[in-house]
Amino acid sequence: MRATDIIEKKRDGDELSAAEIQWFISGFTNGEIPDYQAAAWLMAVFLRGMTRRETLDLTLAMAASGEQLDLSPAIAYAVDKHSTGGVGDKVTLVALPLVAAASVPVAKMSGRGLGFSGGTLDKLESIAGYRVKLSDEEILRQVREIGIVLCGQTKHLAPADGALYELRDVTGTVPSLPLIASSIMSKKLASGAQAIVLDVKVGAGAFMKTVDEARALAQAMVDIGLGAGRAMVALLSDMSQPLGCAVGNALEVREAIETLRGGGPADLREHCLTIAAHMVRLGRREAQPGVFDAIRQELAALLDSGAALTRFRELVAAQGGDVRQIDDPDRLPAARLRETVRAERGGWVAHMDALTVAQATLELGAGRARKTDTIDPAVGVVVHKKIGDRVETGDSLFTVHASDENQLARALTVLAGAPSLSDEAPQPPPAFYGTITEASGA
Amino acid sequence: MRATDIIEKKRDGDELSAAEIQWFISGFTNGEIPDYQAAAWLMAVFLRGMTRRETLDLTLAMAASGEQLDLSPAIAYAVDKHSTGGVGDKVTLVALPLVAAASVPVAKMSGRGLGFSGGTLDKLESIAGYRVKLSDEEILRQVREIGIVLCGQTKHLAPADGALYELRDVTGTVPSLPLIASSIMSKKLASGAQAIVLDVKVGAGAFMKTVDEARALAQAMVDIGLGAGRAMVALLSDMSQPLGCAVGNALEVREAIETLRGGGPADLREHCLTIAAHMVRLGRREAQPGVFDAIRQELAALLDSGAALTRFRELVAAQGGDVRQIDDPDRLPAARLRETVRAERGGWVAHMDALTVAQATLELGAGRARKTDTIDPAVGVVVHKKIGDRVETGDSLFTVHASDENQLARALTVLAGAPSLSDEAPQPPPAFYGTITEASGA
Repeated sequence: MRATDIIEKKRDGDELSAAEIQWFISGFTNGEIPDYQAAAWLMAVFLRGMTRRETLDLTLAMAASGEQLDLSPAIAYAVDKHSTGGVGDKVTLVALPLVAAASVPVAKMSGRGLGFSGGTLDKLESIAGYRVKLSDEEILRQVREIGIVLCGQTKHLAPADGALYELRDVTGTVPSLPLIASSIMSKKLASGAQAIVLDVKVGAGAFMKTVDEARALAQAMVDIGLGAGRAMVALLSDMSQPLGCAVGNALEVREAIETLRGGGPADLREHCLTIAAHMVRLGRREAQPGVFDAIRQELAALLDSGAALTRFRELVAAQGGDVRQIDDPDRLPAARLRETVRAERGGWVAHMDALTVAQATLELGAGRARKTDTIDPAVGVVVHKKIGDRVETGDSLFTVHASDENQLARALTVLAGAPSLSDEAPQPPPAFYGTITEASGA
Repeated sequence: MRATDIIEKKRDGDELSAAEIQWFISGFTNGEIPDYQAAAWLMAVFLRGMTRRETLDLTLAMAASGEQLDLSPAIAYAVDKHSTGGVGDKVTLVALPLVAAASVPVAKMSGRGLGFSGGTLDKLESIAGYRVKLSDEEILRQVREIGIVLCGQTKHLAPADGALYELRDVTGTVPSLPLIASSIMSKKLASGAQAIVLDVKVGAGAFMKTVDEARALAQAMVDIGLGAGRAMVALLSDMSQPLGCAVGNALEVREAIETLRGGGPADLREHCLTIAAHMVRLGRREAQPGVFDAIRQELAALLDSGAALTRFRELVAAQGGDVRQIDDPDRLPAARLRETVRAERGGWVAHMDALTVAQATLELGAGRARKTDTIDPAVGVVVHKKIGDRVETGDSLFTVHASDENQLARALTVLAGAPSLSDEAPQPPPAFYGTITEASGA
């Protein structure tokens, strides 16, 4: 085979064979196919698209490009979740312990954040001593012992995806459906899960701005998973406003702990219960969707009883974190400066723009504008009012947690653009716009 | 500006500004924009196309990417020609001396061949001692002294084109109309001509297989030239069969000398007269197309009188070549082996496939499959019958000139596929399918 033939075939809109895709991805990963040929191929894929079959083969080739985690010695049937990323999304911190509390073992590898606030690993590192780097052996032992692992990605998983993503980032080929779907799913497939729940975010604070775009991405990922023999559920969830109230690493850990104690913001609790219930249903291999409501009630009881929090505490202890911070969240990193933003008029909250809130937290140092930026775990924004809430003049809208006066000032300026009030009560957005299950995806 | 913004703009089908194109080409040429970004951009250009304005700006940016030859100290109004390349195309060897003999000074920089038989420089190097490398000063002095220069391209002309072409070759982005047109025209603009005659070949032995494709390329190049303030003529000429009879470097020089003596194959003589007459008309700045026929007659007389041959002899002498080889072409490199291929049946020649003849000469070593291949000047094929000719059993169809028995055997096998005979007299192809002049291009 020749790389130029494969580039030209895709350029002309023809379908590549599985062998051609495997050869190209493997050649690119081992350095035989240079960046410039991969870049031309990526642009051809961007503009010509890929069939469902090609997208699956691309994903399988990327998943096979490095080591793959085999969880079977510890978990007979592993279930995983993935969120496409949103503002205030601390669902993993709640849902994972909750699923483990329901006796479904979970071993999840999370990522760091770029843009917005931090990723799950960044949030976990707000907890003193928490080790995100585990060996495969440590992962297997810990999941056998306590039924839950939450760590960073082993670096040899799907190296083709990392290399291709770096190239896409500088060649204008990021927002391509088959490339996004295969990138996400290659890592999930290489992580060893047999069943996957996808939380696909829609709205201002998400990569996908419309429900149609999000549905297309969700369907593409479900198709890949089913094609690879995995059980799949994808949820389309609202990201027009932040999820829960806290945005910022330690602030989000604190809110996750509140939720694990049976409290926390109602939208966050509901979201975590829904994600976790799908995970438990898949993990138990329950084919009947009818069991879903029963599982959800079971999980709500595990939040209210503190059983889920206990699992989280065990997780933190097992990975070297300071459990006193879980027992007393006031011990988590706290910012030196706090400023409350109050409403200057009364009304109903019509918008609470997730992207604007995220930009404010970026100004505070809660996220990374570049990969090499360091994160300040203490800073962030707590949103006190959500869309549909009634506000009176003087009510507090936000609390801003900052480490630096200049950052605080910049964040306040940005944040002023986040809310808008109306004189009539608006319809709050739904938590979920839809669900794609195995059945509808098959 | 950022490279990714420019890539994305073209990716999305938007028109790039002149400033954006200049910035991108200049950044690529000086190494600030890496190959992989240029590769993605080239694929986006390939699939999205370019407007006439963008194509002109790309050409100007490439022409401005290095040194440009200023012929004005020696030629007040310089005229040039360019052929898109064909089999047996030795027109430059005849037309240049002919134009010079008509007192229109010419300084042309030619290229080497890749694939097919050699380029004009390779053909000239069949002549012992002929120097193709001249300095700018030597070019200007020689054209002042004898009115004609035929040499290689100064290497600093349009370096962006060379670098982009190398990248296109390995990224599946060669056959793009704006990229081909700008590549050819950037070198022509940087070579200092005010008027340009383009010989765009059509057919089996040409890059463009159909008249429509060739017309589109010709029109794109004429548009660029006019946009850059040049006078332009483009001819669409047949390349279904070889031009003239000889294909191979020294064999073509010999045929060119015959033609300069007033003989040679009729189709070659007519072709050279047409190209040269357009060059002379443009060089004399004759706006009336009516003068064309008079100029053509004038040039025919210059062939028949030997005046054009005298100019060729002066050219060879000035550039250090052995003029005894011009006076006695038997002194040119000659192949050790000669084999005549004869017709096994009678009929009319319906096809004499140019590409197949070219492939046979490649087998003999007359051309380059790779840039680093060396060329055997002596070998090649002489075609004795052209489309429409009557053939009787036993008539000679080809003479094959070879240096090696194995090469000869391979060439004979290939060559068997070149001719086909029919029982009815076919219509020979026209020499030209059309002409695009300043008027129709404006």
